[in-house]
Amino acid sequence: MTISKNAIKYLRSLSLKKFRQKYNNFVVEGDKMARELLALRPDRVEALYALENWLEKAKPELPLPEGKTFAVSEADLAKVSNLSTPNQVLAVVSIPESKLEEQQLRSGLSLYLDGIQDPGNFGAILRVADWFGITCVFCAPTCVDPYNPKAIQASMGAFLRVPVVEEKLENLCRLAPGLPVYGAVLNGDNVFQAALSGQGVIVIGNEGNGISASAEQWLSHRIAIPAAAHGGAESLNAAVATGIICAVFRNQK
Amino acid sequence: MTISKNAIKYLRSLSLKKFRQKYNNFVVEGDKMARELLALRPDRVEALYALENWLEKAKPELPLPEGKTFAVSEADLAKVSNLSTPNQVLAVVSIPESKLEEQQLRSGLSLYLDGIQDPGNFGAILRVADWFGITCVFCAPTCVDPYNPKAIQASMGAFLRVPVVEEKLENLCRLAPGLPVYGAVLNGDNVFQAALSGQGVIVIGNEGNGISASAEQWLSHRIAIPAAAHGGAESLNAAVATGIICAVFRNQK
Repeated sequence: MTISKNAIKYLRSLSLKKFRQKYNNFVVEGDKMARELLALRPDRVEALYALENWLEKAKPELPLPEGKTFAVSEADLAKVSNLSTPNQVLAVVSIPESKLEEQQLRSGLSLYLDGIQDPGNFGAILRVADWFGITCVFCAPTCVDPYNPKAIQASMGAFLRVPVVEEKLENLCRLAPGLPVYGAVLNGDNVFQAALSGQGVIVIGNEGNGISASAEQWLSHRIAIPAAAHGGAESLNAAVATGIICAVFRNQK
Repeated sequence: MTISKNAIKYLRSLSLKKFRQKYNNFVVEGDKMARELLALRPDRVEALYALENWLEKAKPELPLPEGKTFAVSEADLAKVSNLSTPNQVLAVVSIPESKLEEQQLRSGLSLYLDGIQDPGNFGAILRVADWFGITCVFCAPTCVDPYNPKAIQASMGAFLRVPVVEEKLENLCRLAPGLPVYGAVLNGDNVFQAALSGQGVIVIGNEGNGISASAEQWLSHRIAIPAAAHGGAESLNAAVATGIICAVFRNQK
C-alpha cells in the first residue's frame, strides 16, 4: 500500500518530542530492533510499516500485529524514516506508563541521569543498564527525551527491557529515605576502593557540567574513577563513566 | 579579512579523508580545543581562523601563530565549519608522522582498534586512552579515519596527547614477540578475575562484528566483561567496553 499523506505527516511528527508526548507514541526502526520489539512487546506496537520482503521473512517467526501491519515501498519508507539509510521496517510504539515505587527503588541498583543531553550517550547508557541488570533508569527533566529516535537507536533494544522513569532525585530520596545515593564526581573516593552497596541510586552528571547543585545535596557517597597519574584527559564520556562505575558495582570483591 | 574562495574550498575539502591525506592536514574547531591545541602544540598549527573577539581574548594568553592567524566574520566561519553551530575558532593542523617502535610497544599498555567505524566511538576511545595513560592507540586500516572531524571533536583534545598509529596487529606482534595481546570477546575470561599485565596490547573489535578472524589469531588472552545474570543486552557500546577494560587493567588489586 501507499502511506497516506496524513500518515506520513503523523510519522514524521514523531521525530519531535512535543508530538511524541501528544500522541504517546514513538518510532523504532531497523530489522534487529523491530524483531526484538515484536518478540518481547508485540502488545506495544501501534503500527508496523515494512518492505514486502521483510514481512514475508518475519511472518513465520514473529507475531505481526493484525490490522496494523502494512507492506510499503522503499520509497515510502524513506519518506518517513529518521535514518540516513532506511532499514526495511519502521514501527510505531506506545510509550509505557511509568510509576515510581519504593519497593522497586530498594530492590537493586538504579541510575539517575542528571541532564544527559546527547541521545547517543543516553542510548549507550541504557545499554549499560541493560547489560548490568540495573533496576530502573531515572531521568532528570533536563535530560534528552528518552524516546528521541537517536536515543532509541543507540540503545540497541535496551529500551524494551530497562524501565525509564522521568523523576527528580529529590523525590526518589524522599520516597526511600536512607537509600545510598552515589554520585560520580571528579574528586570523589576511588570507586575501586569504596564500599559499594547492591542497593541504591548512582547519579550521573551532565556531559559538560557534571552533577547539578540541586542533585549534589542528596548524595550520600561521592565516588570517582581514578585517572592515570600521567593521563591527560579532563573527563571521560558520560556513557563510558557510567559503564565503568556499573561494572565496578557489579564486580567488587 | 574575508576568506578567499580558494581557501574556503580548501578548508571544506578537509572534511574528506582523501584531501586530509593529500594535504596532510586536518581541522580542529571550538574554543576549548583550539586553546588546548595552542597551549600544547602551537608548532602543528598551519592556520588559525577566529572571530576578532576570540583573538583579542586569546592574544595575551596563547601563542597565536604569526602570519597564520586570521580574523574572520561569523558568516565566513560558518562557511567553513563542520559544526552545526560554528564555535568562534577553527584551526588547520598538520597530521603528525607516526612510527612504530618496539620500545614504545613494550613500555606500557596500548590499544589496537580492529575496525571502529563510528567517529564518536573513536573519539570517546581516545579520551579513555588519555584518561588511563595508554601509551599508543593502534588502528586497523578498517577503522574510521582518526582525523575525521567528528572523531577529533569527540576526543575532546585527546588526539593532542595520545599517539595514534595506523598499523596491523600482525606487525605489532611480529615486532614485539611474546608481548601479551588481550582481546575483548564475548566468551572470554572475566576481566575482573584475570591476571592482567601492565604491558601489552588490548584489542577492541568492530561495533557490530567484534574482533576479525585475522586479528583473533594473534590473541594470547581472551577477556570479557561479565554481564548481570538477569541483564538483557547483547553487547556494550565499543567505547564503553574499552573504558571498563582499561579501568580494570589500571585498578587491579
